[in-house]
Amino acid sequence: MAEEFTIAPIRRLLKKAGNLRINESAANKLRDYLGEYGQLVAEKAIELAKKDGRKTVLERDIKGAALEIWIPEENEDE
Amino acid sequence: MAEEFTIAPIRRLLKKAGNLRINESAANKLRDYLGEYGQLVAEKAIELAKKDGRKTVLERDIKGAALEIWIPEENEDE
Repeated sequence: MAEEFTIAPIRRLLKKAGNLRINESAANKLRDYLGEYGQLVAEKAIELAKKDGRKTVLERDIKGAALEIWIPEENEDE
Repeated sequence: MAEEFTIAPIRRLLKKAGNLRINESAANKLRDYLGEYGQLVAEKAIELAKKDGRKTVLERDIKGAALEIWIPEENEDE
């Protein structure tokens, strides 16, 4: 399980969306999902950079990777 | 644009996926996507908790919200 993110920004994000109490396991679950998403995009982006013979991950690798996993709607047609 | 996350854990995540150089705008892009995803899930989860008449966001709200946005495959049938 990816645990890249600390819990504080996750709780802030939930608090900002509506001032409700946040159960601990709820915050942990969102952290897990964020970690999984980030890891999948990162792995795919690395793959794209390598396939292109590059040693640097570029913005377009992140975009290309996210298109295969999940991307915010406003970015789909960029 | 959601900028909830600091850049260091994002760079670590990318570094862990493959030891390539990470362009600054690539790391920022992944941060943007993570922020957007987290915000959408948070908003939907709050909505679900409120609809249920609760003042606390529970794990199942996060799960229900993620199912409508994006959820890691292994969680789809939980």
